[in-house]
Amino acid sequence: MDIININTKNRFDIIDITSQVQSCITNADVKSGIAVIFIPHTTAGVTINENADPDVTFDLKNIFNNLIPEKNNYRHIEGNSQAHALSTLTSPSLTVIIENGKIMLGTWQNIYFMEYDGPRNRKAYIQIINK
Amino acid sequence: MDIININTKNRFDIIDITSQVQSCITNADVKSGIAVIFIPHTTAGVTINENADPDVTFDLKNIFNNLIPEKNNYRHIEGNSQAHALSTLTSPSLTVIIENGKIMLGTWQNIYFMEYDGPRNRKAYIQIINK
Amino acid sequence: MDIININTKNRFDIIDITSQVQSCITNADVKSGIAVIFIPHTTAGVTINENADPDVTFDLKNIFNNLIPEKNNYRHIEGNSQAHALSTLTSPSLTVIIENGKIMLGTWQNIYFMEYDGPRNRKAYIQIINK
Repeated sequence: MDIININTKNRFDIIDITSQVQSCITNADVKSGIAVIFIPHTTAGVTINENADPDVTFDLKNIFNNLIPEKNNYRHIEGNSQAHALSTLTSPSLTVIIENGKIMLGTWQNIYFMEYDGPRNRKAYIQIINK
Repeated sequence: MDIININTKNRFDIIDITSQVQSCITNADVKSGIAVIFIPHTTAGVTINENADPDVTFDLKNIFNNLIPEKNNYRHIEGNSQAHALSTLTSPSLTVIIENGKIMLGTWQNIYFMEYDGPRNRKAYIQIINK
Repeated sequence: MDIININTKNRFDIIDITSQVQSCITNADVKSGIAVIFIPHTTAGVTINENADPDVTFDLKNIFNNLIPEKNNYRHIEGNSQAHALSTLTSPSLTVIIENGKIMLGTWQNIYFMEYDGPRNRKAYIQIINK
């Protein structure tokens, strides 16, 4: 299993980790199979979205902040229940396909670490399974 | 890796792809393992839901349209930020279990391609891993 | 494939299944690989969230009930369209990583069965894949 280290800068951050995931696959020398990306945190997640226009991630942050209020008389003493809910909604686990040693993403897709309660030092675990 | 082609007809479409996924598994002759279904698009997704009553997908469309507004002064020039957010919320990746050569779905479950910005010609990638 | 039985007690229940999933992995004697947890129901799901403060799951229930109304003139005759939508939003499938025979969860993470239309007798399927 590989570990990627991610240092987030803001409370809500969307950070491209595609090249780090690809490096793990290249080092493992797996030509065909899958890679599981797992985030060992309860206030973060992993997703795939557009890599071309930064306005997409700008809109995503606003949409998610509107979807679940940051403050709302939550009972959880840390006050970050929004972050816990967004972690469950985007999932801490993502599986991608490997062919010819490459992640099979669409033209506009990159893999993003979703920080909902930063800034923090975070990790992503990568497990690669041969076909 | 297999590729399924899907032609969507509407802006928001929910299309059953269960039999195409099962055909890939049958052709691969894998008896026990998993299948990863991956959507290489940033305004679509893949999910599992009820196959019996078409009113479930009717309600799903309304619920998702109410959850995130279609138009809302989004900054992304294409104006389809709702579709990008729904893609992340339902995920472009889904893993199902194979036993005795069959997808192990519950009685009421089918696999659905979720189109959030159609109509378009779409693809789903299928990677099958032997146990 | 292993099967875990889960008896839910309330309409909306969040039930820790971490130790049952770990038992399946221990019995399979797999040291390195992945485990796919699949819920064969259309009104339930599986997720990962905080294991320490029960107020997190209390807040999660309220957040999800506010996100999608329980009653809203849904067309689906069973009236449980909220549960169908939450099942798609949290996903019926979750993949975790195994190293040294253990699920590689973060310090604060447990695996939870999400019941959205209980009380019912439910199942989770577990498929373990060796690296």
